[in-house]
Amino acid sequence: MATKKKKSKTKAKAAPKPKAKPKATKKIQKKKAVKKKTVKKKTITKSRGTDQKKQDDNTVKTIENTAKRIHAKIKKLTAPELKMPVRSLRNVSYDKRKGFFEIGKNMKTRSLSVNTVKTFAQTLKMMSLSRELVLSNDFATKRDAYYQSKNWGQARFKDQPESDTVMDDMEAMFSIDGVTREQLRFVPDQHGGAVAGALKVIDRDIESGERIEIDCTKFGSGAYSVPSWVEHLEFKTKAKFIMCIETQGMFQRLQSHKYWSKANCILVSMGGVPTRACRRFVRRLSESAKIPVYAFTDCDPYGIGNIYRTLKVGSGNAAHINQFFCVPHATYMGLMPQDIKDFGLENATHPLGDQDVKRAKDALKNDPFFQAYAPWRKAIQMMIKTGVRAEQQALSLHGLNFVMEEYLPVKLKNTKKFLP
Amino acid sequence: MATKKKKSKTKAKAAPKPKAKPKATKKIQKKKAVKKKTVKKKTITKSRGTDQKKQDDNTVKTIENTAKRIHAKIKKLTAPELKMPVRSLRNVSYDKRKGFFEIGKNMKTRSLSVNTVKTFAQTLKMMSLSRELVLSNDFATKRDAYYQSKNWGQARFKDQPESDTVMDDMEAMFSIDGVTREQLRFVPDQHGGAVAGALKVIDRDIESGERIEIDCTKFGSGAYSVPSWVEHLEFKTKAKFIMCIETQGMFQRLQSHKYWSKANCILVSMGGVPTRACRRFVRRLSESAKIPVYAFTDCDPYGIGNIYRTLKVGSGNAAHINQFFCVPHATYMGLMPQDIKDFGLENATHPLGDQDVKRAKDALKNDPFFQAYAPWRKAIQMMIKTGVRAEQQALSLHGLNFVMEEYLPVKLKNTKKFLP
Repeated sequence: MATKKKKSKTKAKAAPKPKAKPKATKKIQKKKAVKKKTVKKKTITKSRGTDQKKQDDNTVKTIENTAKRIHAKIKKLTAPELKMPVRSLRNVSYDKRKGFFEIGKNMKTRSLSVNTVKTFAQTLKMMSLSRELVLSNDFATKRDAYYQSKNWGQARFKDQPESDTVMDDMEAMFSIDGVTREQLRFVPDQHGGAVAGALKVIDRDIESGERIEIDCTKFGSGAYSVPSWVEHLEFKTKAKFIMCIETQGMFQRLQSHKYWSKANCILVSMGGVPTRACRRFVRRLSESAKIPVYAFTDCDPYGIGNIYRTLKVGSGNAAHINQFFCVPHATYMGLMPQDIKDFGLENATHPLGDQDVKRAKDALKNDPFFQAYAPWRKAIQMMIKTGVRAEQQALSLHGLNFVMEEYLPVKLKNTKKFLP
Repeated sequence: MATKKKKSKTKAKAAPKPKAKPKATKKIQKKKAVKKKTVKKKTITKSRGTDQKKQDDNTVKTIENTAKRIHAKIKKLTAPELKMPVRSLRNVSYDKRKGFFEIGKNMKTRSLSVNTVKTFAQTLKMMSLSRELVLSNDFATKRDAYYQSKNWGQARFKDQPESDTVMDDMEAMFSIDGVTREQLRFVPDQHGGAVAGALKVIDRDIESGERIEIDCTKFGSGAYSVPSWVEHLEFKTKAKFIMCIETQGMFQRLQSHKYWSKANCILVSMGGVPTRACRRFVRRLSESAKIPVYAFTDCDPYGIGNIYRTLKVGSGNAAHINQFFCVPHATYMGLMPQDIKDFGLENATHPLGDQDVKRAKDALKNDPFFQAYAPWRKAIQMMIKTGVRAEQQALSLHGLNFVMEEYLPVKLKNTKKFLP
């Protein structure tokens, strides 16, 4: 994995305009003129897939309805308002039947006033940008949107934290209507993991609308890199299940040896805690194909409490989006604490560190997900009691391909024993 | 990008053997028997590509020659020894003509003695494992190798830092013979970035040897995910250049809009500082196709000093591998400090943070690479003087597709102005 970038997020400098005319001025003006025209279009003109067209129609309609409500209020000379769920941990609950951390019913209302006028205007401008993106079949990262705002006069964002907050509010607002941030065409600045196996992904050329079929059995030792957003993808598969794998090393082994062919499955490399796009990809794929999802991580509090739990139920901090991004029907294949005994891995364990023990105890004491399931409580207690953790690759103790020849076949014979 | 995992790397616990017979015992014994047979094979039996067969023959020969030298010494009753370059910053120099941080001539010799016997044995066992992996056309991560060592009796690694050190020594040792760690079949636990554009990658089925052609123009909004090691790949391309991009957001824009088709190029998403596999992929591809490599990063000390510099000249800490992993003919397209003025991005800059200024000054004062080039010194001085940085996506100030319609075409008309 590439090293993460750390840099100071500081305020944008309002530098004086350059005296010298920038090379690009002419074309910029021409571009702006073109943009104006695009905004006027009322219908989705570019060719897209049927499902995507329906989705995009719905997104535009939802944006326009929100705008019309505001417009009507203004015409009646009453203060317009925007409603969105309160994004705080107090407004989150875990429902075992639904299977994810759900945002509660507490709403906050932003009425137009002297204090809120800038944020209000920014939200409307952001909605307008979103509509424009859907109509022109384009997309933007939140950074793109931030820089676009520099053309919004007084409504421009002062810094990136300011634009992030408005983006989060807008996402929460539209989540009530079942519209995701990605459907609003604001996409994350990260890819969605790597995929290999018995799957055809159907994509479309963003400009011509031409249908593209991507066969995930044809990548050799490489894989299909999932794009930053996946709302437009469709799937064709006869696979029996999806396996979500923590480490690239294990994914590479199963991929290079075509384990997906032997087990008739789809392999997904999460590369640690799965990104938004990765989780949404797995969710949409598993629902579309109606096949189960099995998680395969290290046997430690991080693999279980962070990676698996995020995949399955989402996070408390971003509960308004869990309805779209979690994979509530996922189950946990391994490594389980019990596997260490069953597969003779005692010589390949590591003692739990202090942080591991703290994380495990915290999960038992404070996490509504683990509290809801007795088998999980038992497994975590067993981990604390034995005091050891084991990495996925500990299976190499018995030979590099033991995982494919012994571990996975034995486990997959009894999927009912997987943890919930 | 997925969240990075932090866990304590602690010593492996030498747990007592389980009393209950593990489920897997029978098959494990069978597997071990099979493995013994594999080891006896003296020749490369599996079908591979011609280039790979040649490479693998060379790797096996190099391992065997090293082993034979040791064996001969032992037969003469003299102490056998292993020689490897000293891996310290004092033994590193930058040669402008060669174009990378090069390891010096200082060697350390490990003679067999009471003190070194364990490390000596471990190195030989690791060489033996490597030979076995090449012969059976398989591979292992360093974690895999660590767990395999648990079967080496007294020579087993106590903990992972111990096995990491032996692995690094072995890599340095074989680098003298021009053999990479990946050719020894020890592969990193990370993928090699994402690729899209006018390129066909030739891979082979690891088991059947069947040729697989991967067309990187056929992935829609997705991409080709480069595997953990790339020594076995071949390339077919008529592209004019390779563009290495810092952020996934910018890569996604150029990819979704098929910029590679307009510019006849290959796009590589580095996702921050490029991994080993990513750098080796770009190096091998650019040498095989004889085309230039252009870097496109944020205009800040991190994008220039860490991402671009690592891509181009490698790192001082791992100088023994730079000969394989750096891309000495890469040049820097942008964003340059001068671009902020030329493309009217003044309103989209951020002030340099304290850490940014420190990094920039440090590059001028201590980094032999930047010291070697006047244009770089000038650019970095300009950055410090103006006191601002700019992100790639700042180009969105002039419209989301300004980068494709204006910035890149203007820049690519004058590649001689790219920084060295």
